[in-house]
Amino acid sequence: MTDSEVQNINAESSFAEERLGWTGYVEWEQYPEKKALASKVLAASKFTPIPEFQFVPLPTTNPVLIGHRWKEYHEVLGLKSIVDFSWETVQREKPDLLHLLDFPYNGETKRDQLLQGKLTDNKYHFVRNHGGVPNIDENVYELEIAGLVNKPIKISLEDLKDSEKFPQAEVTVTIQCSGTRRIEQINEYPGDGDELINAPWGKGTAVYRGVPLKKVLKLACGGVLPECEHLEFIGADTYFKKNNVFNYAVSVPLRKVRASSGTEVLLAWEMNGAPLPKIHGAPLRLVVAGYIGARSCKWVYKINALKEPSMGPVQRQEYLYYTPQIGKQNAKYSNGFSIQNMPVSSAIIYPLDKQVVVHPGKITMQGWAYSGGGNWVQRVEVSNDGGSVWYAVEEENMTTKHYYAWRLWKFELPVDAEGWLELCVRTWDSSNNTEPTFVRSAWNWDLHVTSSAHRIKVYSINTSRPATAQRLRELEAHGQGIEKQSLSHPAEFTLEPEQEYLEKYRQYPREPTD
Amino acid sequence: MTDSEVQNINAESSFAEERLGWTGYVEWEQYPEKKALASKVLAASKFTPIPEFQFVPLPTTNPVLIGHRWKEYHEVLGLKSIVDFSWETVQREKPDLLHLLDFPYNGETKRDQLLQGKLTDNKYHFVRNHGGVPNIDENVYELEIAGLVNKPIKISLEDLKDSEKFPQAEVTVTIQCSGTRRIEQINEYPGDGDELINAPWGKGTAVYRGVPLKKVLKLACGGVLPECEHLEFIGADTYFKKNNVFNYAVSVPLRKVRASSGTEVLLAWEMNGAPLPKIHGAPLRLVVAGYIGARSCKWVYKINALKEPSMGPVQRQEYLYYTPQIGKQNAKYSNGFSIQNMPVSSAIIYPLDKQVVVHPGKITMQGWAYSGGGNWVQRVEVSNDGGSVWYAVEEENMTTKHYYAWRLWKFELPVDAEGWLELCVRTWDSSNNTEPTFVRSAWNWDLHVTSSAHRIKVYSINTSRPATAQRLRELEAHGQGIEKQSLSHPAEFTLEPEQEYLEKYRQYPREPTD
Repeated sequence: MTDSEVQNINAESSFAEERLGWTGYVEWEQYPEKKALASKVLAASKFTPIPEFQFVPLPTTNPVLIGHRWKEYHEVLGLKSIVDFSWETVQREKPDLLHLLDFPYNGETKRDQLLQGKLTDNKYHFVRNHGGVPNIDENVYELEIAGLVNKPIKISLEDLKDSEKFPQAEVTVTIQCSGTRRIEQINEYPGDGDELINAPWGKGTAVYRGVPLKKVLKLACGGVLPECEHLEFIGADTYFKKNNVFNYAVSVPLRKVRASSGTEVLLAWEMNGAPLPKIHGAPLRLVVAGYIGARSCKWVYKINALKEPSMGPVQRQEYLYYTPQIGKQNAKYSNGFSIQNMPVSSAIIYPLDKQVVVHPGKITMQGWAYSGGGNWVQRVEVSNDGGSVWYAVEEENMTTKHYYAWRLWKFELPVDAEGWLELCVRTWDSSNNTEPTFVRSAWNWDLHVTSSAHRIKVYSINTSRPATAQRLRELEAHGQGIEKQSLSHPAEFTLEPEQEYLEKYRQYPREPTD
Repeated sequence: MTDSEVQNINAESSFAEERLGWTGYVEWEQYPEKKALASKVLAASKFTPIPEFQFVPLPTTNPVLIGHRWKEYHEVLGLKSIVDFSWETVQREKPDLLHLLDFPYNGETKRDQLLQGKLTDNKYHFVRNHGGVPNIDENVYELEIAGLVNKPIKISLEDLKDSEKFPQAEVTVTIQCSGTRRIEQINEYPGDGDELINAPWGKGTAVYRGVPLKKVLKLACGGVLPECEHLEFIGADTYFKKNNVFNYAVSVPLRKVRASSGTEVLLAWEMNGAPLPKIHGAPLRLVVAGYIGARSCKWVYKINALKEPSMGPVQRQEYLYYTPQIGKQNAKYSNGFSIQNMPVSSAIIYPLDKQVVVHPGKITMQGWAYSGGGNWVQRVEVSNDGGSVWYAVEEENMTTKHYYAWRLWKFELPVDAEGWLELCVRTWDSSNNTEPTFVRSAWNWDLHVTSSAHRIKVYSINTSRPATAQRLRELEAHGQGIEKQSLSHPAEFTLEPEQEYLEKYRQYPREPTD
């Protein structure tokens, strides 16, 4: 296809929206020829190069990064309105997040909002999207269930929400992006920049209401066929990878859907007692407890019962956990293992890395602790010496246990020493797993699942020491501070009266006398 | 003194140069009233604030930092011509250095120039100045020797250079700034920004010709008095500290001056067979082997024989080595020890930190190794695993031993592993000292003497592995590289043919079958 032939394609009509009331949804998976045409248009187009953001300091702007390429992908296919609606949705639903990437939208909860309680307010819950936000009228919405089921169906949201037809469930779930704490890996060892711009997006906890998928499969579809081993979820968002276009598709094993009472895989329409926000997948999304967030498909419109995991690139070619000797020089899709369950992990929210902490012998630490894969948080431990001596956080200083949610914790860490210290945290879960000690221990090319003990540097100033208390008074008397911004600025006054200095010097001379 | 009174001071006449032919030299130490007047002018003036350069990324400009404040100190005292002459001297004598700070001038040798041979070309030898460059006519120059000597003298350069009067010596000396490798400490733990803007300046080696101070004291002054224990050196450059003004002054113990044949403390006028460059202290400087560079006083015009070390702030209040719990909150002049001898240290020049190294199973490393304090370099060892396994550099791949100079080394390091590796180097000296393993082990508030094993991260790509060789061919076929700039950029082609992937997947499925 020549450039001029590509230019003659009418993108507006070739890649039009599929159904009335389903704005921003283009069906790709049903139409191989349309996908092929889109690939040709993409291959014939020029896009803004992938930015370098790992070997250079991250911008301090908000949004931190601008998703030029992904906007351009949509634009050349005539889908600019998806880009625009997505950003409008951010402004309406998530104005106060730290915007890591404007499109596809990725936003992180600010520290104080994270610590407001074990549940994250919908307005502050993190977002990590892979494409634009579709705008689907819930009155015309329907979910299709097909593949290896006894009875393929299409079902309206109204029917799904009918508690006479399906038993509902409320589950408290922490959703965690596989990229949580990724910045720690990037800071030490850069890795794959991926097709999607990476950033250190986070995690959040909410009570979701919906119906277990297990129940829908049983009650509406008469169960799955014996060959069925995986359930594929297809979302209405458009996903791009290496000049190909897809609907977002992932899958989970049937075993997971059937686990416990089925509450590990929920079809949800409510979040913290409110209707599911559009940016979080309204009208209907999956919530897969204990798995990486990527499996909790948003804007789901189709579920396929399959023999094998989804062939979608998100399932097969991404979220792979490589051994440390795998990288750009040898990575394949078959030599990383697929990340489904999230391991035990934790993080320090306060103090901040490189913070100057003035304290009377104890430093207040706060953070979160989580484990996926059906495990819950048993114990949190913190260290004031980089990971040799550990202190257990008291049960009364942690939020209550949940099977599928994090625990927030707080600890008064005894700190006698002054100067730079390394504080760290690790968590033990209900399978007695704990975290690797160093980022190095679990670094991987795709920078996933940063699960090593989170460590920060703080500059400790212990006011219970008389010499320190005196110096702080001197600094104050001279109008000088000691916080981070001024730590490295020299005191503008003499550090010691000459007479005192000379007395000390003569008492303990610098050279031996014989 | 009011602002208007200060403004009425005629700086040009109040702080005029001292002697004809001694441009840029103002005598301060003889005139307490002049010093007091200068302090008042400085106290009444406003200066550009100290820049933050430790908690933020260093600029990538050349000069890296601009010495606004120190220029302004000179300007308010009517000494702007010193600033101008200093930069002219840089342009003439050191155009090709990496300019770390334009004034007082600090410049670092570029890597390739450092490795050209064990001697550093005068044009490329590093410079670390504390003030401006005086311009002294060697025909009118004379050196004064006073204090606790039998016969105080003034002696011309011509007399000093007269080999009939004084035995001359040539010594190969590595001069090392106490701030060498400081950037490694800053990168991990910021410290004191000091009155002088810090930067990671370096080291260099030259053959100096001159006369041992020991001989001059004996032959010209009839020896020192019994009470004499230290020799103070005063330089013609003007030094500022906390609104006070000084001539640069330091000292060394008499024991050091007398050590071995006296060649450890040389009065030098020649560097690598050429007249000493102005920026290096012409017409005459001290070269103190094995000590921090700060004691090798440039533009020396006076030597005082003293009972105690110099009272100058450079000697008493700077170059102090603090224990890690000392910092802005409690540092005094009496609780750090004075740095004179330099410890054993070494560094990797190639490869670079965070370099992507494509190699056939061996990585070529190059660097330097040094020890001060009368010790020489015995052995250099490198590690490919961050400091557990060590390889000794072969004697034939090191430059020859010198008592007072570094050794350059080269090693072909066996490297099988791929991905991020930590390479490091350590050196053993003739007193069997070696280096601490981590920056953390020897961090100190004033960021001096970075002597821990130098470590770098490299991304190893071993072309002797078939899968890696094939991927490199694929990248090349697609016009994509793998060097640092593109390492984190994803390959734009599929990483594995679908059929190969599926075969592998079905051979080793991701979930158990029962």
